This record gives sequence, structure tokens and C-alpha cells, in this order.
Amino acid sequence: MDFTVDTATRTVVESFRDTGDPRLREVLESLTHHLHAFVRDVRPTPDEWAAAVDFLTAVGHRCDDTRQEFVLLSDVLGVSMLVETLDGVGEGTESTVLGPFHQSGSPRRDLGDSIDLLGTGRPCVVSGRVLATDGTPLPGAELDVWQCDEQGFYDVQQPGVQPPGNGRGLFRADGEGRFWFRTVVPSPYPIPTDGPVGALLRATGRHPYRPAHIHFIVSAGGHRPVTTHAFVAGSPYLDSDAVFAVKQDLIADFAPSDDERAAERFGVPVPFTHAALDLVLAPQAGPPAEHRG
Amino acid sequence: MDFTVDTATRTVVESFRDTGDPRLREVLESLTHHLHAFVRDVRPTPDEWAAAVDFLTAVGHRCDDTRQEFVLLSDVLGVSMLVETLDGVGEGTESTVLGPFHQSGSPRRDLGDSIDLLGTGRPCVVSGRVLATDGTPLPGAELDVWQCDEQGFYDVQQPGVQPPGNGRGLFRADGEGRFWFRTVVPSPYPIPTDGPVGALLRATGRHPYRPAHIHFIVSAGGHRPVTTHAFVAGSPYLDSDAVFAVKQDLIADFAPSDDERAAERFGVPVPFTHAALDLVLAPQAGPPAEHRG
Ligand SMILES: [Fe+2]
Ligand SMILES: [Fe+2]
Repeated sequence: MDFTVDTATRTVVESFRDTGDPRLREVLESLTHHLHAFVRDVRPTPDEWAAAVDFLTAVGHRCDDTRQEFVLLSDVLGVSMLVETLDGVGEGTESTVLGPFHQSGSPRRDLGDSIDLLGTGRPCVVSGRVLATDGTPLPGAELDVWQCDEQGFYDVQQPGVQPPGNGRGLFRADGEGRFWFRTVVPSPYPIPTDGPVGALLRATGRHPYRPAHIHFIVSAGGHRPVTTHAFVAGSPYLDSDAVFAVKQDLIADFAPSDDERAAERFGVPVPFTHAALDLVLAPQAGPPAEHRG
Repeated sequence: MDFTVDTATRTVVESFRDTGDPRLREVLESLTHHLHAFVRDVRPTPDEWAAAVDFLTAVGHRCDDTRQEFVLLSDVLGVSMLVETLDGVGEGTESTVLGPFHQSGSPRRDLGDSIDLLGTGRPCVVSGRVLATDGTPLPGAELDVWQCDEQGFYDVQQPGVQPPGNGRGLFRADGEGRFWFRTVVPSPYPIPTDGPVGALLRATGRHPYRPAHIHFIVSAGGHRPVTTHAFVAGSPYLDSDAVFAVKQDLIADFAPSDDERAAERFGVPVPFTHAALDLVLAPQAGPPAEHRG
């Protein structure tokens, strides 16, 4: 039977009938439906489709160990945020995008250490607690932290300029779920615009900036890990994040402090900037049904 | 305002409001709707979405000057065929996929030349006419022809083994729209399976084979060019082409012949294989409205 406009989608869906993994089959069938619906909707000319293939190829070629252009593409189309939001559980600290600059195996640091290896910025202390949804502290919770410097660059973007691990660290909360570390106040920054995603933003009149933020992945036994940001209150672009990642509850005050006792405790000179935030993890799975209601 | 499941799609669509090119805006708005609908439908976990990003990245990394893995991906999802089919005009020779092996600037050859530079296969003659839909010959029509060898390889797949241009050639029809050239009968072949698209086919229990075919792009002044195949009648996989490209009207007899006069005319020994096919081009644009009906 011929492949026609009428039979196309059914024929391709049917081709996946022998897929071993039922989830993969479900995803591919849905992908076929939605991708074909997109093509039917816009009716690309073969030249336009070739241009789309060229664009995706350029995105792939721009990816390497320290640059993930497909994550950027997913980010600027709001897909990363939609995935995170659909995955959320409606309790605990809200999640937001992972972004393209996360690195596995950041340096393990002690509470109170500085993740600022440049030493050129205004000192800032980030402190808080990791809590369960009922307010119970989660001792020994793990925090994977990464941020850009005061010029808006992550260490992986400036391999010759910044020491590896600048702005990044793995911390373990203390016996009362408390954490604190030293850093600098991050800067708003543009997502990388020298690749095809940057060209897309220019063609659509969109700016590439993200409001200032610190990334966290927080985890603790028996709880759902959360990938989130602490956004700097008052930062530019909180209303127009290029990757749509802002949630109001994630905005934190980064407040000036001249509290000399606190400064001594945190090992910083006065005045310093202080951000205090609690990070709340939902339980790993809901309670058994008989305990509900 | 927060980015929520309810506002996500509207927010991203709205971000494209300043796009200068109205067609680009239309495509991106539609893409956002369909891509978000796919994500809402399958609700990928962040790990699944990361796996999708890794897959697309691997597809991009597999693309180079002679390999287009994104075309393969588009092909095995039936999208290339759907684009071609929607672009068709319902008259003249039907179009089918371009495929990943087309090369610009194939060698210019004279009518009757052989595109088989290996000389190891059974001789085959392909002859026919390029016609308008009313049967008028189109003198000087251009034919861009490419095919695999008897082992199923295109020249670009075997750069050290095959001379460049093997199986490829540009021909110009004569003053009566006629063309003829010598070649070998192409073989069914698997699309390349050593990349991520091959892994996808394995995971879904699909075979990678395409029925035997010769590719054509045919063009003539005042007419719509057509990208098409001549499929070899009786070839395996005509019912299950990995890229969904078969249309019944494109299947041609490649018939044995011991016609000595024809053999002499075409410069081949007897017996030889002969495929006779007419290629019909639709007019560039429909007739003016006042001439219709
Ligand atoms: Fe970031
Ligand atoms: Fe082919």
C-alpha cells in the first residue's frame, strides 16, 4: 500500500509494534503523532525541512564536553521547564531547569568553604537548612552547588581563565540539616549566543539573558531530590528569563549585612552579602494509601 | 508570573511575538504547540528528557560531509516522506525522499555514458523520456542520477574503495526529451546502522533495509522539479521500506533483454537488463485562474 497523507501516521506508528520496551513504544508512538501533526500543520517545503535538518545538525555539532546546545534549545523553547514542572510533586522547594553547565564530580568541600576560587568578588554567604516537608531537618543532606562568577561566566566556559571547580562544590549538611558556604553574588548572564540557538534568539528578537541565580541539586535519603535555583531578588530579567525558569518562591534576598558576629562565624569581612534559604524535600513516595485522608 | 503547566505554552508562544519573519514565527509557534503537547502527553522524567537530549546529540555528532544522521532519523520516522507527499502536486511523476546520499556536483556525463565506474556488475541500461503532463517531451531536461552498487554501497560510503562519482551522474535529455545511460542493477541495502538511528531501529525491532532503487532529481524550465526513485520491481523490502518511500507508480521493470540491436545502440553486450521509464513533470505553477474550469 502506498504511503499517503492519509496513511502516513498510522503506517509509522504501526512500524513500532515490535518494540520490546513498552515505554519506548509509547514515547515513539506519541512522538510520531505530534511530529506528523506539526508537519501537517506547517507543511514545510522540502527546502524548509532541509533547513530544519541543517539547524539540528548545527546544534549537534555545537555540543561537546562543556557545551550542550540541545539543552539550550530545549531551554529556550520552554521544554526543559515544562518537563521539570510536570515532574514536580507540588510540595517542597519547587524545581527548575538543570541548565547546560552542571558538571558531575564537582569538588567535595567542607561547610564554610568558599566556592569562589578567584577572590575578586564581593564576599557572600549562603546559609540555610535542608528540611522535610514537615519541617524536620534532614541531617547529612547532600547539596550540589554551581554558579557563575561576578562577570557571568561558569568555570567551564573559561577553562584557561578560571581554575576548574570555581563556583562549584559538593556540600554535606550537618547533623541538624544546616549548610553554609562562601561565594560571590552571581551575575545575570546571557546563555551562549555564538551557536545556532543564539542565532534563533536573534531571529526572533529575544534577548539571551538569565536573571542572577545559584544552582542547587539537593538530595537526602528517603526524599525526592530537587534540581532548583536560588534567584537573586531584584536581579534584571526576573520577568523575562530566556529559559523561563523563574518561580516566585525561588527568589531569595541577597541582603547586605554588617553583623560582625555572623561575619566572624562565616569567616568573611564586614560588610558582606547574606542569603538565607531553606530547601525543602518531598518524601520519596507518598504514604501508603491506608494512611491517607 | 510563574511558569506553570497551564501557562507554559502560551508564555513560550508569546516570546516569539517580535520575530521578524512571519513564516519563522508561524513555524515556531506551531512547533511550540506540538512539542509541548508531546511533552504533556508522555510526561518524560528529567532523566528521560536527558536521554532524549543525549540521543539528539549523538545524532548530531554522527553527521559529517558524507553522513546525515538527522536525515536518516527524519526518514525512519516517516517525516521526510510526509514532507515530500504534502509538497506533491498530484500530477506528474510522484516524488519520494531525497535520502542522505545525494551529493551536489555529481560528474556531468554524456547520454549513453556509464555511471558504473567499477565494471564488476551485470550491465543495465536505463532509458526513457522526460515529459510534460500533456505528454509533450521536454528537450534538454536535466537528470541528477545516483544509486548504490550491486553490493548496496554508495560511492560516498566507500571513499577508499569506489572512485568518486561511481553510481552518480548529471545527464541532459536530448532534443526530444530522451535520456539513456548505462549502469548496474542497484541492490537493496540497509541504511547505516552503526549510529544512533541504527540503535533506534534495533530497539524497535525494525529492519534497516530499503528495496533496490535508483534516485533521480529531474528538472526542466517552466516545470516543477521532482525528487524521486525508480524502484526495482520484485526487489525484497518493497512492502517494508525502512524509510516508507515506496509508491506503487514508482516501481519499474528491470527486465532481461537479448535484443542485439538495442544492445548495440546502448553499447552493452547481450544479455543485458533494461529499465524503460518516463518521468513526467508538472507545470511550475497552475494556469491563471481565468483559464480554469
Ligand atoms: Fe545558570
Ligand atoms: Fe538510496
